[in-house]
Order: sequence, then structure tokens, then C-alpha cells
Amino acid sequence: MPRALADLPHHDGSPLYVSGEAPRLGDTVRVRVRVPRAFGGMRIVRTRSNPDREPRYSDAVVVAETPVAVWWEAQILVENPVHGYRFLLEREDGTTWWLTSAGLSHTETRDIDDFRLVSYDPPPEWGREAVMYQVFPDRFARSAAAADRPLPAWAEPAQWSDPVIHVGPSTGTQFYGGDLQGVIEHLDHLVQLGVNLLYLTPVFPAESNHRYNALSFDHVDPLLGGDAALAALVVAAHEKGIRVIGDLTTNHSGDAHEWFRASYGNPGSPESAFYLWLDDGQTEYVSWLGFSSLPKFNWQADELRRRFIDGVDSVVAKWLQPPYSLDGWRVDVANMTGRWRDEDLNEDVRRTIRATMREVNDGTLLIGESTNDAASDFPGDAWHGAMTYANFTRPLWNWLSVPGSPAAGGLGMTLGRTSDYTGIDFHAAHREFAAAFPWRTRLHTMNALDTHDTPRFLTSARAGTVPVAFGLAVTMPGIPVVWAGDEFGLTASDGEESRTPIPWDRLDESADTIALYRRLIALKRAHPALNGGGIRWLHASDDAVAFVRESSEECVLVVAARAITTVDLGHELPDTAPLIEGDVEWKDGRVAIDGPRFAAWQLAGVALPHWAS
Amino acid sequence: MPRALADLPHHDGSPLYVSGEAPRLGDTVRVRVRVPRAFGGMRIVRTRSNPDREPRYSDAVVVAETPVAVWWEAQILVENPVHGYRFLLEREDGTTWWLTSAGLSHTETRDIDDFRLVSYDPPPEWGREAVMYQVFPDRFARSAAAADRPLPAWAEPAQWSDPVIHVGPSTGTQFYGGDLQGVIEHLDHLVQLGVNLLYLTPVFPAESNHRYNALSFDHVDPLLGGDAALAALVVAAHEKGIRVIGDLTTNHSGDAHEWFRASYGNPGSPESAFYLWLDDGQTEYVSWLGFSSLPKFNWQADELRRRFIDGVDSVVAKWLQPPYSLDGWRVDVANMTGRWRDEDLNEDVRRTIRATMREVNDGTLLIGESTNDAASDFPGDAWHGAMTYANFTRPLWNWLSVPGSPAAGGLGMTLGRTSDYTGIDFHAAHREFAAAFPWRTRLHTMNALDTHDTPRFLTSARAGTVPVAFGLAVTMPGIPVVWAGDEFGLTASDGEESRTPIPWDRLDESADTIALYRRLIALKRAHPALNGGGIRWLHASDDAVAFVRESSEECVLVVAARAITTVDLGHELPDTAPLIEGDVEWKDGRVAIDGPRFAAWQLAGVALPHWAS
Repeated sequence: MPRALADLPHHDGSPLYVSGEAPRLGDTVRVRVRVPRAFGGMRIVRTRSNPDREPRYSDAVVVAETPVAVWWEAQILVENPVHGYRFLLEREDGTTWWLTSAGLSHTETRDIDDFRLVSYDPPPEWGREAVMYQVFPDRFARSAAAADRPLPAWAEPAQWSDPVIHVGPSTGTQFYGGDLQGVIEHLDHLVQLGVNLLYLTPVFPAESNHRYNALSFDHVDPLLGGDAALAALVVAAHEKGIRVIGDLTTNHSGDAHEWFRASYGNPGSPESAFYLWLDDGQTEYVSWLGFSSLPKFNWQADELRRRFIDGVDSVVAKWLQPPYSLDGWRVDVANMTGRWRDEDLNEDVRRTIRATMREVNDGTLLIGESTNDAASDFPGDAWHGAMTYANFTRPLWNWLSVPGSPAAGGLGMTLGRTSDYTGIDFHAAHREFAAAFPWRTRLHTMNALDTHDTPRFLTSARAGTVPVAFGLAVTMPGIPVVWAGDEFGLTASDGEESRTPIPWDRLDESADTIALYRRLIALKRAHPALNGGGIRWLHASDDAVAFVRESSEECVLVVAARAITTVDLGHELPDTAPLIEGDVEWKDGRVAIDGPRFAAWQLAGVALPHWAS
Repeated sequence: MPRALADLPHHDGSPLYVSGEAPRLGDTVRVRVRVPRAFGGMRIVRTRSNPDREPRYSDAVVVAETPVAVWWEAQILVENPVHGYRFLLEREDGTTWWLTSAGLSHTETRDIDDFRLVSYDPPPEWGREAVMYQVFPDRFARSAAAADRPLPAWAEPAQWSDPVIHVGPSTGTQFYGGDLQGVIEHLDHLVQLGVNLLYLTPVFPAESNHRYNALSFDHVDPLLGGDAALAALVVAAHEKGIRVIGDLTTNHSGDAHEWFRASYGNPGSPESAFYLWLDDGQTEYVSWLGFSSLPKFNWQADELRRRFIDGVDSVVAKWLQPPYSLDGWRVDVANMTGRWRDEDLNEDVRRTIRATMREVNDGTLLIGESTNDAASDFPGDAWHGAMTYANFTRPLWNWLSVPGSPAAGGLGMTLGRTSDYTGIDFHAAHREFAAAFPWRTRLHTMNALDTHDTPRFLTSARAGTVPVAFGLAVTMPGIPVVWAGDEFGLTASDGEESRTPIPWDRLDESADTIALYRRLIALKRAHPALNGGGIRWLHASDDAVAFVRESSEECVLVVAARAITTVDLGHELPDTAPLIEGDVEWKDGRVAIDGPRFAAWQLAGVALPHWAS
């Protein structure tokens, strides 16, 4: 293998490399490969598609030559809704190479690593430019009106400055009383950060502070201000250029849900088929991971589909329409939805959800939670992107945290501790889990440092690596996520503790961190190459990684390091000042880095012939 | 990573490592991991299952210790019909490792590489002991009766000694007139080789010598002797301990098929829905790779299902019942069956075929052709094993052929030439494509050096490597295949040419090669470890590979080399004579090999505690 990543042939699903990002079945698409001259001269460059699981080939021809690379182009007929393809290269020295979404291989590669053309309807245009801010309503901000609301029996009231109870029975019932008016009152904070997408964890009524155990999907929790507050929040957010998505639980409801109460012990009820009963009397049932408070839905039930996900009168549709006008959904436990024992209705359920969303507003976004290997459920048929930790969050923690740091709970570290990844491991693990995503799924998958289910990244981070971590979140393909509170420099040892009330009284002392987040978000939003441009890796070593995001308009060069090191990119520094940070020295194609650093430069775009029609 | 394969932790699906090979949904299964002391001491060994796509863990405890390894055991609850699992190991030095079907990894691994427990009905008991002999009826042997049969119009008669026409329009019509009585007359040749499974390519009438374009599935081609000849062949074979499987085309029929002729241009016919018509008049249709002589079936058609695959009156069932009593099917183009554009009925069709087979005779074998990456269609729900070239045949050719040799046609070499694999590449490519098969699918997947669709292996083999190649076929997990004629030392440059009439007049001059095949088949049949025992790799280098097949009864150590080399296995030679060949020297744990060699030794079995109940 050639020594440097920068010397390897490259292809991805971006517009530099594929003539149409949203092909239809039967379309002919053109695809290009960039072959660095350093890799050697090619005798043959060929595509290998796999329609109906049977190989089909097309030969590429040279369409452009630059001093450093030769560009080849071939045609592919899109024959299946998810049309896999890879490249085969024969070098002038007679050696043969496979190029796939997982990189270059001398030995034959598997279907799962094929690049993918997808003919399902594409995500909304705005998705790839999204910068997400995640809010957990009970803990974000409390309006004056909150004080007047009667507390339900389950709630254990807390003062805003009380520490979060993150272990034991009060974890789900400690109640701070944040509400949607509180969010409205702090929208300018989001505007100042530069985010343009607000993700609200559930707002439906429930007997817990997290509200993942909904007792109804028909109205917004009065403790949050009710339906009117949600409508007002969306209007206010839209006025400020911020879209809003909600959070649905399609795997289960709470055991206090009106549908569950109507059917529990009541075999003749209209809701009887909504759950997975284990006895004729309907008192024993399947639940999420055995927690009896979270009964699992039975998606065989037509009436459940009608009420919840299918058609303009469903729950899925209702909240996307005026006066609520949510811009999409994040779906909780999407991975387990519709799956139990020998039944798997997941594909059917997710496609129905998406079809309903298209029916009421095609410009909505659908993100599915699947915190581990998400690839098989994300071919582009329904979920636009994943809330997953496998391709970004865990590799990031394993590279940038102190090895062996606590990383329990939803982050999914099997041993509850971080591992010890090099930058090479970070790149390999990212590539491994991103490889099976179609390109557009990569663009709509969340790049989260942390969430309401994980410890906070800063807690165990190696000193000085927050800019590196969030810098990667805004420059790697995907939707960068700010979990509310990270910009205040909060720490937390697990997902429960990370649901900290936002310390609004510490805005001033958090100014530097907030400014860092603002600068990095501005970088993402200002550069077209970061909103859909290809990603070509140039370097991975123990302590640093580097890549370019490329488009025809511009390229953005990114160098991220966790420690003092030197990075050899094999070419000269661009003649421009860095776009961000700057504390690195560049000489003779080498970057000298004196500590944890994130730096980016703007380069010229890639000038290629127009796509032939 | 530790230096040697032999020093790595190991698990596979064999009885040493898994307490039940045919678990039912809801069973608890015990699994074991062998951790060599050379790998280091372990703090934690844990399983990570993935039921309903959500991780679940169980801790392992030490159950046995030997001078060289520590054995750990854990329990797994089988929660889905295909229950994936992997292992996580934390070493005393704090490093963490994933162990999957694809080997050991420091970075997190993907679901596709999980080991798999399968609760679908298992293959017949006899499958794992099968040694297959593949016969192409027109070219195997011609009985005296053949001379009296009238030739159809399409046939171009050939003398048995004529060269095969393998290019041009006569390829499919050159007719030698081999028949089933001819097969009966040469069954003793199969007995002498030691094979116990005869695979007949199609015997239904068709307008070609290969008969993959059937014109009916209701009777055996009279040119082969008709129905009675098939019944007689199966009786005669069974008497000699040889099972017989047939060959079905479920992707397409011939355009002379009675169903196609009834529906062509005839929209009202009962068979109208059997094909994929592109016009209302039913004269344009979808066909296999665009060959209009092979119209593709439409598996939406209930009546097609009823006639062909579903229930005791179907074609699938008829030939498994007396008086024909075939022992199973190999299904042609299984990979494309039921797939077209946005429709994919493959799973449904294959499961229906298998259900029908179970209904009439549960002890039958079902093999699906899927010549490339077969994994996704072979979870153990229907096909027992694959006729594929990805996990064995192509890696073998790329390692043992002269690099750049012609390898066109069905072998699936994208460039039509062999590549240049080292033994390390051979092992890696094998593992890559075997990894996603459940263990029992690996045991029933064909280990073919070549078939009627490929050139013959010998044609381009490095000198002296036939014993190496067929030695690997009989010792690696899978069903070894003798493509009739290989034992005569035949060569052929493509799949058409490899359909050579068997040169029965050259039995004597082929005696050495036949004896080689006989010895290697006898090795497979005599050793329980080769019929279901685990496979643990010890060594891979440029010119050699080595592994053990292990069971509680015995282990078989295998060393295969393509050239002069030395293999370091890290332990002493067993105190026994080699089971086969012997021309290697062993000293201080190193094997000195003086050329292409295949050698095997019997070692003691692995004594472990009985599986706890």
C-alpha cells in the first residue's frame, strides 16, 4: 500500500464525484474517481455495480488531469432503489485494487462497503446546512409562568441551582420545571451561537422529567405550557431562522398512556392490539428492556398505525401541520421499533412514518436513534440520518478522552470506560461505521460530542481538546450538535447528570467557551464545502488527523491534533490565513503543532469539466 | 497486535465453542472463548449480543485452563432467529479487544461481523459430511441407449472425442448425448473416489446442452432417458451410499417453457402473471441479463408459487418424493431470484422453497447459487449453504494460480485475470466473505476449485498446487466439490470449455490424479474434526497457511504451502506420522517445506468440561 492517505484514489457521494445526488430509478449517473499521480498510472478503471445482487461493469475514461491527480469518469445505470457500486483499478504495474466506501483494498471487498446511489426521495434541502442545538425541556429554562402551575403527584420539585439527582429512584422524577416559554425567552442565545435547528426531547405529557414514557401524543404537556406554547415556540424560532424538530417514541409508550390504560386487562378494547400481550387477560406484556413502565408497541395493529403514524390524521402528521408546524422528528429507539423475537416490521414502520411526513410536508427531516451500528436500517428509504454514537461520538471519545475514563450509560462503551484510540483508530472506526451509509445519510447523521443520554465530553477530555472535538463535529460530514450546556463548559459523569439545568447566571464567565462554539458554527455555516462537499482524508497518525472537504467552489483543509506533533500533508501551505485558530506553523508541506489544535484553511475549489448530459 | 495468528483469542460456532448448534428461540446457549496465554491475562471477557438491534451483555468466567490457553464461558439468551454476538476482552494491561467472526480488532466492530446463533431449522445431519461430485449430464457419460434417441432440431451432434465448442453460437447447442444411464454406469467411479453426494446440473428438457433454459419442470428430458432414468439413477446411487441433488432455475425459465409460451402475447392466460411483462400485449419482458431466451419469473404470481415452489404438489416437492426421491436442490441464480428494480421477494421465495422441502422430506439439502458476496441472503433461514466463489474459489485461484492468468466467465474475476494474493491475502479474503455466514452455513457452502461455469483450476495453477488446492477444499469448513473431469487432470480456459466430455478412455493414465483425489476425500470422510470441527488459524504468510480443525475427539493440523518456505507454528510436531503426504520436515516447532505441499496430522482432541445444563 502507498505510504500516505493523501496518495490513495478517492471517491465519495458528493457532487464532485457523482453527477446527481437524487437520481431516480432508471437514471444514468456519472461517477468520478480521483487517482493521485503518486499512486501510479492506471491501465483500467472500472465500476462494479451489483443490481439484483449480480455484478455489472462499466469502464471509466480520463476526463481531467491536474499536476497531482488524474480524474476518471464512468456511467452507472441506477437499477435498484439502493444501487451499490465500487471501483476496480488496475495499475500499470499489474496490481489490482478495489476502491469502496471503506477505502482501498488489494483483496476483494464486500457488498456492505459499496458506495450507494439512492433513488428514494431525498432529505429536505436545508438538512445538510443544519447545526443542531439539543434541549431537554425540564432543564433548559423556566419562565415566570412555571411557578403558577400545579405540580403533579409524581414530581419532586427542585430549585434551578440544585444538583441533579443522577442515581436512584428520584432520577426520573426530580422536577425543575423548565418550560417552552423558557425556550422562547432564550432563543437569542441560539441565534448568537449560530445554530439553525432546535431539537426538543419529548414535550408530550408523561410521569417523568424526561417524558420518554408518554401518556398521550395528543397534546403538549401543560407543565411545559401546553399546545399553545409549542405553537408559539415554533413561530418564534422560525422568525429567527431556527427550525424545530420534536421527539417521538415509536418503540413504546409509558404505562400511563391512554392507549395502554384502555387496553390493560381489557381484551375487548379498541387498543387491545396496540401492545404485545403475553397473557389472554392482557396484564403481562413486552416492555423496553424489561422495564414494565415502558410497554412495547405491536406494529401489526392497523388501528395503532392509523392513529400514530399513517396518514394526515396521525400523530406523526398532526404536529408537522399548523399551528404547530414542527420541521421534523427525531425518533427514539428507532433501532428496536417493530422488532421482537421473530418479527421485524421496522422497515415497514419507518417507511410509513416517512410517507406520512411527505404527505403533509415534504420539507421535513426524519432522524432515527440507533446508537450502535446503524447502517442496515439507514439505506435512505426513510430515516434521513442517524442519531448514533458509533461513527463519530465513540471514536472521538476514545481518541480525545483520557484513556479509561468513565463513559457509562447511553454512550455505549461496553466496559463503561473509554478505550485508547490513536488518530489512525479514530479514522478507521469512523470510516468503518460511516461506510455503509449512503452519502446523503452521512450528511444528515448527528455529529454529537454528547447528548442527554451520555456523560458530557468535557468531563474526561484530554486538556484543551474541546476545540478539536467540536471542530471535527462542524467539519466532518453530518449535523453538528450542541447539547445545551456544553457551551457553558458543563461536565457530567453520566447521561442523567448531563441533564443539568442551564446555568444562565454563568453566561459571562462562559463567554470564551460560547465564543469558541460560535466561531466553529460560523465556520460550518459560511463554507459550502462543509455543507455537502466531499471528504478526502490526507493524514492520520497517533495524535493528528487531516482532511479536505471539497467542492467545485472551494475546499476546506482541516487539521486536528490532540498533542504536540508534526503532520506531513505532502504539499505546500495554502497562501491564505487560517479560517480559524492559527496557532500552527506550516513549512515545506509539514505542519508543526504545539499542542491540541484545530485549524482550517480555505483552498481553491476543484475545477473539473461539467458533467456531460 | 500480537505477532502470530496462533496467539490470538478464538471462537467459532463449532461444538467446542457453542453448547448447541441448533438452538430454539428463547433457549440459553453457552459459548466459550479460547484465550492463549501468549495473548496475555484477561481482566474481563464479556459477550455483546444485539437482540432487536440493542446491545445486551453477559460476563464470562474461566471454565478450563491448559498450559497454553485459558477457556472462558458465558451464557447467551437466543432472542432473535438470527442472534448476533461478539466478545469484548479487557486485558490486564488495560487494552480492550473485540473478537468477532472476522477476527480480533482493537476498534469497535460492525454487526455484519458478529458471530451468529440461528434458531431456524437446521440442515440435514448428513450435509456436513458431504463430498460433492458435480455432473453436467450431456458431457458425463453416454449409454448405449443414447444412440437410438432422435435428435431435436436445435442439437448439433458431436462425437465424444470432439473438442468442446466454447465460443460462438454453437456453444449451447453442441450435443454429445450424455445421459442418466451413463451416470448409473459410472457410479462405481464415484464410489472409488469416495464421494457421497452427486450434484446433477439440470435434467429438465430444454433447447440447449446445459438445460438452464427449461421448457418444462414436469418431466425429465427424454434425451437423458426421461423420468424413469432419474428414478433409476437415484435408486442406484442410494444403494451405493450416494445422495443426489438436482438443479432448479427459480430466476427464469427458457422462452420455450410451456408457461412462457402459454402467456406470451396472451394476456388472459392463467400463466400471464408468471413473467415480468413490459407491455400490455405481453410480448416484451424482463429477462436474465437481457438475454431474451431466459424470461424472468414474477414471484408476485400466486399460481406460479403454487405450481413451482409452494406445497406438496409443486415442482420443488415432486422430485423430492418417490419414485424420484432427490435429496435436495441446488438453485440457480438464487441471488437474483425475486429481485427486480424496487421489488425484492427473495427472502419470501427462498423460505417458501425450504418450507415445501421440509414438508415432503426434512432431510433434504438446499444450496443457493450466489457467486459473489452471498452473506446477506444466507442467514440460515432457507439456503443451507452457498454455491459461491467469493470465500474459497477466488481466494484460492488468486493465491495458487500464476498471477494474471485468464480467469474469465463465471469465476467472477472482474478483470478476467487472476490477481496476486499472498497466503495472508488468501486467509483475509476467505475470512472476509465467510465472516457473515452462520457457522452451519459455512459447513454447507461449496468449496469448489472450479465448476461448469469456470475455467478448470489446473489450467493456470502454479506447478504442483493441485494437492494444495483440493487439500484445502477437503479440510476447510464446507462441502468439497469435484467438478467431474478434474480428477482426470482436465484443463479448460473458460466455463464453456470446462464442460468437457469425460475421457473414460484415460482412466489408467489419470490414475495418479484420481488416487490423489481419493486420498484427500478419504481424509475428509475419516476425520470427525473435518466434518464440523472448529477452524483455528495458526499461520498465514506469503507462501503458506496453517490451521487446526478441532473437536473434543481429535484435532487435525493442516499445513498448505505453494512454494519452498518455513512455517513457524510455535509448538512441537505431534508425535504421529502425517495423515497424508509427508514430505515436510518439522523441527523445533518449525516446518521446513521444500515446494508446494499439503500435509495434515492428527492431534489429540480438546478436553473441556462438559457443557453445564
